[in-house]
Amino acid sequence: MATRGYSISKDDYLKRLRRIEGQVRGLQGMIEDDKYCIDVLTQIASVTKALQGVGLGLLDQHLHHCVMAAAKESGAEGDAKLDEAMAAIERMLRT
Amino acid sequence: MATRGYSISKDDYLKRLRRIEGQVRGLQGMIEDDKYCIDVLTQIASVTKALQGVGLGLLDQHLHHCVMAAAKESGAEGDAKLDEAMAAIERMLRT
Amino acid sequence: MATRGYSISKDDYLKRLRRIEGQVRGLQGMIEDDKYCIDVLTQIASVTKALQGVGLGLLDQHLHHCVMAAAKESGAEGDAKLDEAMAAIERMLRT
Amino acid sequence: MATRGYSISKDDYLKRLRRIEGQVRGLQGMIEDDKYCIDVLTQIASVTKALQGVGLGLLDQHLHHCVMAAAKESGAEGDAKLDEAMAAIERMLRT
Repeated sequence: MATRGYSISKDDYLKRLRRIEGQVRGLQGMIEDDKYCIDVLTQIASVTKALQGVGLGLLDQHLHHCVMAAAKESGAEGDAKLDEAMAAIERMLRT
Repeated sequence: MATRGYSISKDDYLKRLRRIEGQVRGLQGMIEDDKYCIDVLTQIASVTKALQGVGLGLLDQHLHHCVMAAAKESGAEGDAKLDEAMAAIERMLRT
Repeated sequence: MATRGYSISKDDYLKRLRRIEGQVRGLQGMIEDDKYCIDVLTQIASVTKALQGVGLGLLDQHLHHCVMAAAKESGAEGDAKLDEAMAAIERMLRT
Repeated sequence: MATRGYSISKDDYLKRLRRIEGQVRGLQGMIEDDKYCIDVLTQIASVTKALQGVGLGLLDQHLHHCVMAAAKESGAEGDAKLDEAMAAIERMLRT
């Protein structure tokens, strides 16, 4: 059974996403406690960076596994996968 | 008793952060279910954008309330608050 | 005669923009000489960072001078200037 | 003679970079004429977006040509090229 590229370190991604979930709950607590805006913004920048790290890791694995596997099938399949990946990269850059 | 600027729509921020928390849990489910990488990346871009929206809202209120209030006290206090806000803006841009 | 906030270091901005102009011409040379894509991308990241530095500098001076001056006139004028600045910050974040 | 991937639309890149060069010169004129900060920031956002467009175009061609060609040689060469491309994507995201 084929597994998606990123499943090789699924646990690592899950751990990071659980930490991010905890950070987002922490942000709720900061708002509830009327913490200083700038401190909340610092925490938001940190969560954003962590999310981006997960995204970059997934993209890396996607390119190395799915795209490369598609390229081995045929040039056309590789190109199609790359177009899809480029659209995802653009979405990451625009946010 | 002074309240932080953003407390005027505290509920709105909490609602948005709870939705973001749900989205992060959704991301965990996507990883667990080996969902297609590109779909996970699309969802990450959406969560990042939502977080950034919360950040921009907080920054907006911070500038209108805390910074303006400080500026009324004295030019020096206003400038100090602005320097702090500029550092936060740079952190947002760098992520 | 009132001068815009940033005119206090106009020469510095001009010097930085002339260097950026030279870098953009350098990029044209890299393309003409078929330089390696990754090296061109590295140079583009450097130019983008330099442009962003100019933008952050202008924003900083704008907040400290124009916005603060408007806030001294009246709360409403300060708020209007801040709304305008926030829109510029959002545009910087979205690119 | 091998040509780099992007050389197929070299003229298009050169045209875009010349336009960007003109925009950077326009920015110098705006500073010299003490144009309103917010208008300068809007123009900087536009130049940044144009530069990013050139970068995305180059990255797209690099992935489709250099990386795919390397992948055809061997999996190891493809992976090495992808690692290099991922580092460039990270640099684009961090600016």
